[in-house]
Amino acid sequence: MDGSPSERLAALGITLPTVAAPVGAYLPSIRSGSQVWTSGQLPFVDGVLLRTGHVGDGPDDVSAEDAAVLARVACLNAIAAAAGAAGGLDRITRVLKVVGYVASAHGFTAQPSVVNGASHLLTEVFGDAGRHARSAVGVASLPLGSPVEIEIVVETDRVVETDRVAGTDHVAESDRVAEVEPS
Amino acid sequence: MDGSPSERLAALGITLPTVAAPVGAYLPSIRSGSQVWTSGQLPFVDGVLLRTGHVGDGPDDVSAEDAAVLARVACLNAIAAAAGAAGGLDRITRVLKVVGYVASAHGFTAQPSVVNGASHLLTEVFGDAGRHARSAVGVASLPLGSPVEIEIVVETDRVVETDRVAGTDHVAESDRVAEVEPS
Amino acid sequence: MDGSPSERLAALGITLPTVAAPVGAYLPSIRSGSQVWTSGQLPFVDGVLLRTGHVGDGPDDVSAEDAAVLARVACLNAIAAAAGAAGGLDRITRVLKVVGYVASAHGFTAQPSVVNGASHLLTEVFGDAGRHARSAVGVASLPLGSPVEIEIVVETDRVVETDRVAGTDHVAESDRVAEVEPS
Repeated sequence: MDGSPSERLAALGITLPTVAAPVGAYLPSIRSGSQVWTSGQLPFVDGVLLRTGHVGDGPDDVSAEDAAVLARVACLNAIAAAAGAAGGLDRITRVLKVVGYVASAHGFTAQPSVVNGASHLLTEVFGDAGRHARSAVGVASLPLGSPVEIEIVVETDRVVETDRVAGTDHVAESDRVAEVEPS
Repeated sequence: MDGSPSERLAALGITLPTVAAPVGAYLPSIRSGSQVWTSGQLPFVDGVLLRTGHVGDGPDDVSAEDAAVLARVACLNAIAAAAGAAGGLDRITRVLKVVGYVASAHGFTAQPSVVNGASHLLTEVFGDAGRHARSAVGVASLPLGSPVEIEIVVETDRVVETDRVAGTDHVAESDRVAEVEPS
Repeated sequence: MDGSPSERLAALGITLPTVAAPVGAYLPSIRSGSQVWTSGQLPFVDGVLLRTGHVGDGPDDVSAEDAAVLARVACLNAIAAAAGAAGGLDRITRVLKVVGYVASAHGFTAQPSVVNGASHLLTEVFGDAGRHARSAVGVASLPLGSPVEIEIVVETDRVVETDRVAGTDHVAESDRVAEVEPS
């Protein structure tokens, strides 16, 4: 599949969601030079957390298959947050890193298959530029009881504007961070 | 509240602590270009870990309220570590990222309220420049039994000095890292 | 011990392994400007995970001493992954950050002594340039049941090539990422 990230997203029938409101005193994402770092994102849709629980094989657990779908949803929120600070989805030129936290029931060790839900979405949206380094870990619990949390770091095509007056580099304040206001 | 970070800190009645000694074979913080990355910091005061245990609602647990104070203390240590590598508190121009690890008792899901203890301190000290991206996760256990661990990434106003002799960029060794010697 | 990282490695009697195949839809490592970020690495040797289990003091647990050896093995894989994206081991000029995840049995709090297995290897291979910022955390479980997972961020001597035509900086595509193909 060719095209810009926004064209690919449209071809997938996906609409970029409104950036999820932070669950605390922080920003959804922030720019540092050519990098944009997102906060950890949960599987919210329209402000509703889709599911709570731990991922595992027990009767009360969230299955790995369901959790992969939740990771995909959380990753879509991460893409939206990154696009906010990048100045638009198509300013994202490369996905660098994904950290996937999976709230894991005792004995569950298939975190990679869960976090693949995020990784596959990134490749679908960004093509080869969506391939990334990644860490997947099984944690004790996550905010609000979410089964998964996804954070990403991306590169953008906007370089930091510098002011070379007086021989020092000052980052243009307007470019420091695109503060995405949650709805 | 206006003023430089050091003026704000003074107005808050807070003294920047001596950088906590690493609990292992590593540095408290390190510079990479305009970024300074800290190690995970624990709630040490004068070399004493304030509290051990897991955060939760049980009778033996550390309460979320107490844990938020511990996160604030750990974050103050992170600020001190960052200031060391930055060449001073007032060289820090922006907080980029906070990762807050919370040793969580079974069923505890209010990690964001705990890590807010760190986030609020950053906003008090750095103002709008203290607003950051963040991930909060509940982990099984932390070094020395600490209830919380906080790491931060900040930006500084010191850009990497380069030596353009021979057409290549060599970072000035003196600027590579400010190795903060713990007391 | 003096010499280049590859000379130090040879003096240690260590051969840099083939980069471990990712356990999912991602890359072993990626470049961003002068930084190289690796994926979380497990203690694989020749494609075999050396050990599974949780680290602790119980009769069925992996001991902290054994886990430190596993962290060293995982870190060697991380060095190999970083060298791949850096264009060679000797292009790595500085280790910036280590995150060490330790699958921890109930009550185990000596994560730092485990992750020291990684930190010590980095100092042996890179000398003072191997000293780094670090976070060590105890997690519920790790991919494939691994007792440890190590990710690193390093700096390299290759700066991003820029194309200043039209006043904008375009990173040379060939320098964007060295995609290390796992065997």
